[in-house]
Amino acid sequence: MAKLKWGMIGGGEGSQIGPAHRLGAQADGLFEFAAAALDHRPEQGRAFAQELGVSADRAYGDWREMLQAETARPDRVDLVTIATPNSTHFEITKAFLEAGFNVLCEKPMTMTVEEGEEIVRVAEASGRICAVNYCYSAYPMIRLARAMVREGEIGKVRLVVTNFSHGHHGDATDADNPRVRWRYDPAMAGVSGQFADCGIHALHMASFVCDDHVKSLSADFASTIPSRELEDDAMVNFRMAGGTVGRLWTSSVAIGRQHGFDIQIFGETGGLRWMSEQPNQLIYTPVGGRTQIIEKGEGGIHEEAQRLSRVAVAHPEGFPLAVANIYCDLADAIRGETRDGLPGAEDGVRSMAAVHAAVESAKGEGAWTDARPPMFR
Amino acid sequence: MAKLKWGMIGGGEGSQIGPAHRLGAQADGLFEFAAAALDHRPEQGRAFAQELGVSADRAYGDWREMLQAETARPDRVDLVTIATPNSTHFEITKAFLEAGFNVLCEKPMTMTVEEGEEIVRVAEASGRICAVNYCYSAYPMIRLARAMVREGEIGKVRLVVTNFSHGHHGDATDADNPRVRWRYDPAMAGVSGQFADCGIHALHMASFVCDDHVKSLSADFASTIPSRELEDDAMVNFRMAGGTVGRLWTSSVAIGRQHGFDIQIFGETGGLRWMSEQPNQLIYTPVGGRTQIIEKGEGGIHEEAQRLSRVAVAHPEGFPLAVANIYCDLADAIRGETRDGLPGAEDGVRSMAAVHAAVESAKGEGAWTDARPPMFR
Amino acid sequence: MAKLKWGMIGGGEGSQIGPAHRLGAQADGLFEFAAAALDHRPEQGRAFAQELGVSADRAYGDWREMLQAETARPDRVDLVTIATPNSTHFEITKAFLEAGFNVLCEKPMTMTVEEGEEIVRVAEASGRICAVNYCYSAYPMIRLARAMVREGEIGKVRLVVTNFSHGHHGDATDADNPRVRWRYDPAMAGVSGQFADCGIHALHMASFVCDDHVKSLSADFASTIPSRELEDDAMVNFRMAGGTVGRLWTSSVAIGRQHGFDIQIFGETGGLRWMSEQPNQLIYTPVGGRTQIIEKGEGGIHEEAQRLSRVAVAHPEGFPLAVANIYCDLADAIRGETRDGLPGAEDGVRSMAAVHAAVESAKGEGAWTDARPPMFR
Amino acid sequence: MAKLKWGMIGGGEGSQIGPAHRLGAQADGLFEFAAAALDHRPEQGRAFAQELGVSADRAYGDWREMLQAETARPDRVDLVTIATPNSTHFEITKAFLEAGFNVLCEKPMTMTVEEGEEIVRVAEASGRICAVNYCYSAYPMIRLARAMVREGEIGKVRLVVTNFSHGHHGDATDADNPRVRWRYDPAMAGVSGQFADCGIHALHMASFVCDDHVKSLSADFASTIPSRELEDDAMVNFRMAGGTVGRLWTSSVAIGRQHGFDIQIFGETGGLRWMSEQPNQLIYTPVGGRTQIIEKGEGGIHEEAQRLSRVAVAHPEGFPLAVANIYCDLADAIRGETRDGLPGAEDGVRSMAAVHAAVESAKGEGAWTDARPPMFR
Repeated sequence: MAKLKWGMIGGGEGSQIGPAHRLGAQADGLFEFAAAALDHRPEQGRAFAQELGVSADRAYGDWREMLQAETARPDRVDLVTIATPNSTHFEITKAFLEAGFNVLCEKPMTMTVEEGEEIVRVAEASGRICAVNYCYSAYPMIRLARAMVREGEIGKVRLVVTNFSHGHHGDATDADNPRVRWRYDPAMAGVSGQFADCGIHALHMASFVCDDHVKSLSADFASTIPSRELEDDAMVNFRMAGGTVGRLWTSSVAIGRQHGFDIQIFGETGGLRWMSEQPNQLIYTPVGGRTQIIEKGEGGIHEEAQRLSRVAVAHPEGFPLAVANIYCDLADAIRGETRDGLPGAEDGVRSMAAVHAAVESAKGEGAWTDARPPMFR
Repeated sequence: MAKLKWGMIGGGEGSQIGPAHRLGAQADGLFEFAAAALDHRPEQGRAFAQELGVSADRAYGDWREMLQAETARPDRVDLVTIATPNSTHFEITKAFLEAGFNVLCEKPMTMTVEEGEEIVRVAEASGRICAVNYCYSAYPMIRLARAMVREGEIGKVRLVVTNFSHGHHGDATDADNPRVRWRYDPAMAGVSGQFADCGIHALHMASFVCDDHVKSLSADFASTIPSRELEDDAMVNFRMAGGTVGRLWTSSVAIGRQHGFDIQIFGETGGLRWMSEQPNQLIYTPVGGRTQIIEKGEGGIHEEAQRLSRVAVAHPEGFPLAVANIYCDLADAIRGETRDGLPGAEDGVRSMAAVHAAVESAKGEGAWTDARPPMFR
Repeated sequence: MAKLKWGMIGGGEGSQIGPAHRLGAQADGLFEFAAAALDHRPEQGRAFAQELGVSADRAYGDWREMLQAETARPDRVDLVTIATPNSTHFEITKAFLEAGFNVLCEKPMTMTVEEGEEIVRVAEASGRICAVNYCYSAYPMIRLARAMVREGEIGKVRLVVTNFSHGHHGDATDADNPRVRWRYDPAMAGVSGQFADCGIHALHMASFVCDDHVKSLSADFASTIPSRELEDDAMVNFRMAGGTVGRLWTSSVAIGRQHGFDIQIFGETGGLRWMSEQPNQLIYTPVGGRTQIIEKGEGGIHEEAQRLSRVAVAHPEGFPLAVANIYCDLADAIRGETRDGLPGAEDGVRSMAAVHAAVESAKGEGAWTDARPPMFR
Repeated sequence: MAKLKWGMIGGGEGSQIGPAHRLGAQADGLFEFAAAALDHRPEQGRAFAQELGVSADRAYGDWREMLQAETARPDRVDLVTIATPNSTHFEITKAFLEAGFNVLCEKPMTMTVEEGEEIVRVAEASGRICAVNYCYSAYPMIRLARAMVREGEIGKVRLVVTNFSHGHHGDATDADNPRVRWRYDPAMAGVSGQFADCGIHALHMASFVCDDHVKSLSADFASTIPSRELEDDAMVNFRMAGGTVGRLWTSSVAIGRQHGFDIQIFGETGGLRWMSEQPNQLIYTPVGGRTQIIEKGEGGIHEEAQRLSRVAVAHPEGFPLAVANIYCDLADAIRGETRDGLPGAEDGVRSMAAVHAAVESAKGEGAWTDARPPMFR
């Protein structure tokens, strides 16, 4: 099977997200890195792209140049990944979708709910794939959890409890470090800090595993380092459309937590637990029974998990291959095999609506607030 | 040193709490089981007490008989433990304090805030010890955590996150079982279910370790099993007097959690973590440094933890000896050595005020509510 | 039920083992501390015993005085615990057995195999209980493991792997500290260092859980701190009478291990795992199935584990209550209810034979050596 | 930087190791998959190679055809990976080295010590790289452990304890399954079963981390499933050239262990612990200090670990990227930057010598046996 052609915008030298996408796209030999506009400095971007093996004529100086040139080529790229600063996601995503490209956009897909709704409409009109990189949902054991929920193995879900907390912004003496500060500055980060940065991964995960949507929420935000305008710690209670109760904690001042992204799902007949720092196990307890450890790759596991497991049971696979799983789904989808686990534009706008609802609720002393985008009410 | 004399009310044959107190009082040879009124059925109570070694003349039929007889004896008991049904705690505690006995009362100390405030006043007037059995706070590593906080080892505390969740009431088909049902029936349990049962342990723990008090809170309650009138799952956000942000989750439908009582404390210069299922370790991370495992009994540990460690490092001590630690503190206190770690009547009334505030907040869609007893506002 | 009367020899002020026995005997209210000869310094021993509540006439200056006086009393103690220096165990145990007392002897029961065989004969002739304090075998989950093996739940046992390793003697600069040094000095410790100190606990545990006996062994000893004459690290391979293969590692220089006493048992149809630092769980995997976590106190657990569980599921019980479990078994046995889990004189002599066999094997470059006492060959 | 050209022999459709190598070589965009002879059935091999993107003229029917054709090309592959059945490794590796290709050979490099020594000589004479895929040694935290040992952070190493045990061959009813049976049949597996299959990974790891070589050993082998001629469980004690004591357990009947590859290293001033199922942490305890958790990617970590960490701290990387790390080292080495962590032919022959020594020792009742290849004695 010939490789698909892949292009990337943003993710230049020194970025964290660039290498993750390049590994994700290439690890399984599914995509060829064919075109790029990697840097806001045109020359650096062109040079770096060529160093990474992109041919000179497709190493572009900016995304507009890339859009124009690729649109004109008969062998245009099959997929464009957008990993530019958050505030530019909307414009670039929209432009490429309208030109008929499939897109994988980094989160957040947009800065406002209105923009998000527009992307949903544009994607629909274009008939192209618009995916959003909620890559944690592509871990095999998360796919398994979702499959188990869908097949009723834990009964109707009563309660989902999730957190995504770290302590890497916990040092007040480091709070003015530009790499940290921008996240808590509304001029750069928008309306929300930690909730928009990490919380929405957890919120997406809850919706994904429960196969449901957040309907309303109540939020409590705190700036535990006083110089921060935006929150560095947040608690969000929510209710899903199907009645599930949700609890979400996110923090960037939880010193000692490296990357505590955990989720617990409690249903009528069982409970599930997953922790991102040990992603190859899913902990399952049937009601009245013993806790069991389900291993990635174990015999007889659900196909949804099996197809994303590359190596034998108990050989751990980690975060970079969760990103690669998104690309596996994309390759399948581009070739016409629907992958309903692939997060899309609807997920993107729902996240944005939840962020804005949480901000409003937090300002309103925790008042319960509709968390749905108007288009999905 | 002669043993102190100890009496018990409630905790008869078949109760869970009775053996825990008897072990706690006797494990270290500090108390002699001298008097008892163990059962609401006088004859059974007398017989069982004698079986446990109490002499016939001090094996009483009910607490009033015990109060009268012990008051009259020159060798009256030094301490009375009250482990009767919750609704009777107030009356019995009050009576024994007024007669000049030291009391250890099971939680909750009272059913209302008003009763709680009365106990505080009575205890003060009597000059006697009125302790409440928040026994988790007597684990050596919790005492260490508090000592570290007090001595500034993690700086000013920004955030405390705690949960006490289990799944033992998660089976809806078991919801009518009388041993389960009463906890969710206002006629028997009062205004709150899971929060009053387990949540207040976590709330006390947060206050204890942070050495501060809860000032206001916002609560979200859910009855995830619809037949329950009271909540089986609750999330409570709070603020302490000193400004610390708090997050508390408690649940009885978290299938797969056996007894998840955990606490995390995050300060300006470090974080702490403790889990009740592995109570002999305290996890400590200095800001910018590596996570360290502090072991009960390790060399050079703070005296507050060392004095409650009976066996060498890495020989685990568990829940029954945490209860015994309360008795160690009581023995010291009775002999005149103040033990400020011993939870008292003030802790009892503060818990009750928080329960009532949480109920009110939850009914009011999470409105922030003063959580302090009027006497401490 | 009246308390049994209990006496103790050794375990004076400042000893580690003394408090463990006093807690073990008294925690469940089964024994009354009635007589003692706690110290080789008569006056200190008498004073300390009285401080602990022993009446003056039964606070003895030495074990001979205690033997004579107690033998003469109509209300003599029901049980004597011997916690004196190792080299004296034989003489005292023998004397008390011959005088008709039940005995609990600290390990090692004797220093030589010949002495061990004599104790077996004396105990048999006396008709009294001679127990040896292999207290780890009294953890509820170890009793459960043994019950599961006996009932065939993991099939015929193929392999048992155990280790008891710590790093508390790993500091060479501390090697001359008298509290450490004696263990590696043949004049004080006998023929073996770490294997005789900790290894025999693991060897007993393997035999106990597999319900079988060690037949032959091959040992590799090392003195990793060169100044030590006796080994501080040992590996022992063994075969049981029933054919089970055994592997045992013990070390006192494993820096970072606090108290790593673990055992794994692998049979034809399943595997079990237990770790002393988390003693309240037993990990069970049926062949071809998922790993399950069995919790102390969970519903429907085997009676052998249930009877030694004091508090509800997931409330941890630790080392001091494992010692207390030995006393529970003793109380039952004294009252005539056989407890075949109670380690006895036969266990004591088998351990000693294994120590001597291991020493011989290690000197002989690992040659396979009969590990059985002559009387059991 | 242009990609290097990579060829593969073996690893055809349905093999486990093939995808692991393809991911490893391509994940970081370092190698282009340029040539292949994937299957012993020429047509299947050619077709599968083309499906994977290899051009038709370099999709070969067998390794001899590939050797001849690639030798003749000016753009010959920079690296050949050999993932054929074990008994063919020697012949193919030798032929490609002699023709001037760099080689990565799967383990075991050869079946005999003599063949292994010949490869060492051929590789030396050719001046080419001959690497062996001991990929576990390429985990970042293992590289860190080795760097810490080399820099004296735990002092002289006294003791190394390692095991590699699983239970996937523990079902006797499955023992005749051809995928399992061949490993215990001398006609197919050679002189050793489990030790040659998994044990040598652990032995290599011990040598690698300690930066030393195994000098002598004593082995105990067992066929716990009686129908097996070769061992399914082995214990090997060893001594390193520098005096370090070693203990290695390997088993394939340890039901419940998924993939228990652990190593503990104990030195004069500290201990280290690593577990392959949680490969992103290294546990470190300084003598007399507290246990610390070192995280992959944490700030200030040794360059040897940092260069092989792709994503931020606490984002796990797993087994496939450990294989990719071998390819990173190979790409560097091909370009002239020496990577002394890359396992080579010397490691291959040392493993083989240890296997033969262990077999001899086990037959000789555990007699201590020289474990070195004659050429390194």
